[in-house]
Amino acid sequence: MKAQVAATMLQARSGMPPQKRGDGSMVKLNAQDASFLAMESSNAPMHIGFLLTFKLPAKAPADFMQKLHAKLARFAVDVQPFNLRLKQQEGWSKLQPEWEVDEAVDLEYHLRHEALPWPGGERELGLAISRLHSLPLERSRPLWECTLIEGLQPGRFALYMKIHHALADGVGLMNQLSQILAESPRGASLPPWSAPVAAAPAPKATQAADDDWRRFFEGLLGKIGKPKPERKGASGLPRGPRCILNGNTTGRRRFATQRLELARVKAIAKAADATVNDVVLAVCSGVLRTYLEEVDRIPKDSLLVSVPVALPREAGQTIGNSVAGVHAPLATHIADPKKRLLAIRDAMRDAKEEFNRLPVALNRAINSLGMLAMMMVPKRENTDPENAAFTNLTISNVPGPKQKLYFNGAEMDGMYPVSVLAGDHRLNITVLGYHEGLHFGFIACPDTLSSVQKLAVRLPLALRELERAVGIGRAARVNA
Amino acid sequence: MKAQVAATMLQARSGMPPQKRGDGSMVKLNAQDASFLAMESSNAPMHIGFLLTFKLPAKAPADFMQKLHAKLARFAVDVQPFNLRLKQQEGWSKLQPEWEVDEAVDLEYHLRHEALPWPGGERELGLAISRLHSLPLERSRPLWECTLIEGLQPGRFALYMKIHHALADGVGLMNQLSQILAESPRGASLPPWSAPVAAAPAPKATQAADDDWRRFFEGLLGKIGKPKPERKGASGLPRGPRCILNGNTTGRRRFATQRLELARVKAIAKAADATVNDVVLAVCSGVLRTYLEEVDRIPKDSLLVSVPVALPREAGQTIGNSVAGVHAPLATHIADPKKRLLAIRDAMRDAKEEFNRLPVALNRAINSLGMLAMMMVPKRENTDPENAAFTNLTISNVPGPKQKLYFNGAEMDGMYPVSVLAGDHRLNITVLGYHEGLHFGFIACPDTLSSVQKLAVRLPLALRELERAVGIGRAARVNA
Repeated sequence: MKAQVAATMLQARSGMPPQKRGDGSMVKLNAQDASFLAMESSNAPMHIGFLLTFKLPAKAPADFMQKLHAKLARFAVDVQPFNLRLKQQEGWSKLQPEWEVDEAVDLEYHLRHEALPWPGGERELGLAISRLHSLPLERSRPLWECTLIEGLQPGRFALYMKIHHALADGVGLMNQLSQILAESPRGASLPPWSAPVAAAPAPKATQAADDDWRRFFEGLLGKIGKPKPERKGASGLPRGPRCILNGNTTGRRRFATQRLELARVKAIAKAADATVNDVVLAVCSGVLRTYLEEVDRIPKDSLLVSVPVALPREAGQTIGNSVAGVHAPLATHIADPKKRLLAIRDAMRDAKEEFNRLPVALNRAINSLGMLAMMMVPKRENTDPENAAFTNLTISNVPGPKQKLYFNGAEMDGMYPVSVLAGDHRLNITVLGYHEGLHFGFIACPDTLSSVQKLAVRLPLALRELERAVGIGRAARVNA
Repeated sequence: MKAQVAATMLQARSGMPPQKRGDGSMVKLNAQDASFLAMESSNAPMHIGFLLTFKLPAKAPADFMQKLHAKLARFAVDVQPFNLRLKQQEGWSKLQPEWEVDEAVDLEYHLRHEALPWPGGERELGLAISRLHSLPLERSRPLWECTLIEGLQPGRFALYMKIHHALADGVGLMNQLSQILAESPRGASLPPWSAPVAAAPAPKATQAADDDWRRFFEGLLGKIGKPKPERKGASGLPRGPRCILNGNTTGRRRFATQRLELARVKAIAKAADATVNDVVLAVCSGVLRTYLEEVDRIPKDSLLVSVPVALPREAGQTIGNSVAGVHAPLATHIADPKKRLLAIRDAMRDAKEEFNRLPVALNRAINSLGMLAMMMVPKRENTDPENAAFTNLTISNVPGPKQKLYFNGAEMDGMYPVSVLAGDHRLNITVLGYHEGLHFGFIACPDTLSSVQKLAVRLPLALRELERAVGIGRAARVNA
């Protein structure tokens, strides 16, 4: 029965239909949602996003994007959370923020339309999303923006959706975005802010909560109960080694993407008797080693990574957050790629066994190592020369749709998370499995952590390195 | 001798070479510059801008803009005011802000590159500039941004420059931008933030301070001493009629442009024995009448307009503001276009005569009706149902270059001011004469004053109306 926990969690999150316009009454924020507002500053913006990329339909006319924009602009904004704004409050009431329904959302403000400069490649797209994600949301309006981006080559376009973390977490936003997507080129595509309740498509996120994802979450949850704890600070929290990945940040962000073929990742997993997620962590570990060696140094102890995990929602909860955080080692101190992968695999196996012995692990995760604790680790007060304040970075996994999806006849060929920096982190990697690919979104503060796009660019090299390490494509290596 | 005052003012402003990197010491802001920082809020951003449009050189390669961006990005930022940032201050020191030299300005942050969505027309350009001008500048960095915009059709591109009003006024920014322009397609083009002192091109603004502009400024200055004062409030300031052009605003801006042929404006002026500037005011008056009739009502008294006037700079002043404000009636209460033009002309003639009788008018303008007073009129405290708090809008004239100019081989075909909203104004019209055209920039708060782009679209109709009213193109009218 325990093996069903994670799948149930995900179903509980995605099975809610969108809620139509409220009766004008207030909606109080829960403590976690409110904390994302309270913690926000110009140096620590608290919005998240998704970047969706599409192939233009065959023989799309020159005005395809203009007409798409005009079509989306015609829908009223009457679905939560897109029609909620913060209630203006005075004095002590500010400590208990409330949402109120905006009955006349000005969609012209929230729905934008841009284009990429020539040559419209991944670099130009990355820079555009970096610029958009660096801008704070305006607190007097509903806390979201949607930007259509044309000029992506060859023959593609993009949609970037930004929303405040107090209104949605990654899984929640992914579910909202799924509302606009259809399972065939001829399927209807409604904007998420106006999806009719009756016609809401079946939620798709659960379909990704297969055995592999479940094993991944179980493994991570299992780490909580590990008999030999990692080194801990005075607070009792485990701590990663001190390195350039942690410290102060500005509000500026640099975003970069990469896509890996799921089949290649699976082949490595099979060859090493590991899971897909072991390989994902090992690939990230590989590019982080190269990057740290170049810009700083590789710590002699393994980096410690935070992994947000979706939790069951409360009954009736259609907005906001329901997330806990756990932590895991990345084995970055091991140079040999195969040994590194096996170390991650073994740690995950241990974790799973321990998880099965500790049925209360889930609750412990919520209480002792929640996202809240991670987000609230102070940014500038770490005077320990050896240890980070808590974890070194976040690597988050958002389950995505398995089947090919369409938007107004255009095939979606990429779905990348654009996340938030937590606590004193300067880097976040969020991965989404969609169709036949794993989609990596790297977000960092470029004022304090330079050239993070190199991590994205080198990801395929780290994958190739792992393939060779486990004996895949020997012939190619010999011929190279 | 008095007739030389305005020309001398303009020469004093533009004759300064750019100042190279300082010695690291602080630069205190004068009271006017500091006031632009103190008055700024999220609902009242205090930056100004210019939009320059260019024709791509013949046979420009596909990577022309990419290479231009790369070229500009190679110059160090070492010229004031582009290398100045606000010094971080605590406590009472905040009341006396200071600039400090940023020795390592991150140009990648300040120099951006975007593109317009299809079809890349004036509408798409207007929306892009609206979006860019709605974003506040980040106070921890030098307070400017420069955005290259490609995709403007047919075969054109644009450059949008934004700078905080505390660092430059319109004339100052125009002069800074002139540094990047050459008088032939083969001339060198340096970015304004890196122009070498020795090679600074001759300032061009003075060449526009011809008799016509001078007469315009003189006329406006003359209004101060008018024997029969307009209706005044308790503060002693003259007041326009209360209408939809005044009240609260948000920080959002809508920008629209229009270009009128100087020759056509001159022909109307000649036919009516008026000045070019009388015609400019009459054309603005005409579109304002139509607009107000549509969205609100035409006040029974004439609108009152504020006109910023450049003042002589203090010795050594290369940054900041040197501007006073005067006011003038727009004759919007007169329906007949010819009578309206003649009323404006006669008011201006009266004003000029009075100016000649009042040699101290300039000083009085500075002291009693300065820009500062206009900017500081409180936004929400006007409970008078009949009268505006002060003037109804600003119409500003920035003298521009008369000869055709080039930027890296590309001919500049437009130079539009993007201004700031003062006091309780919701609309600003700033006009710049460049080469054979008058370039109008309309900026408004779209949350409180809708569809201001209609003013820009209808400007040629108002021009045509005036042509017919003074007997130009009768044949065309008969045939229509």
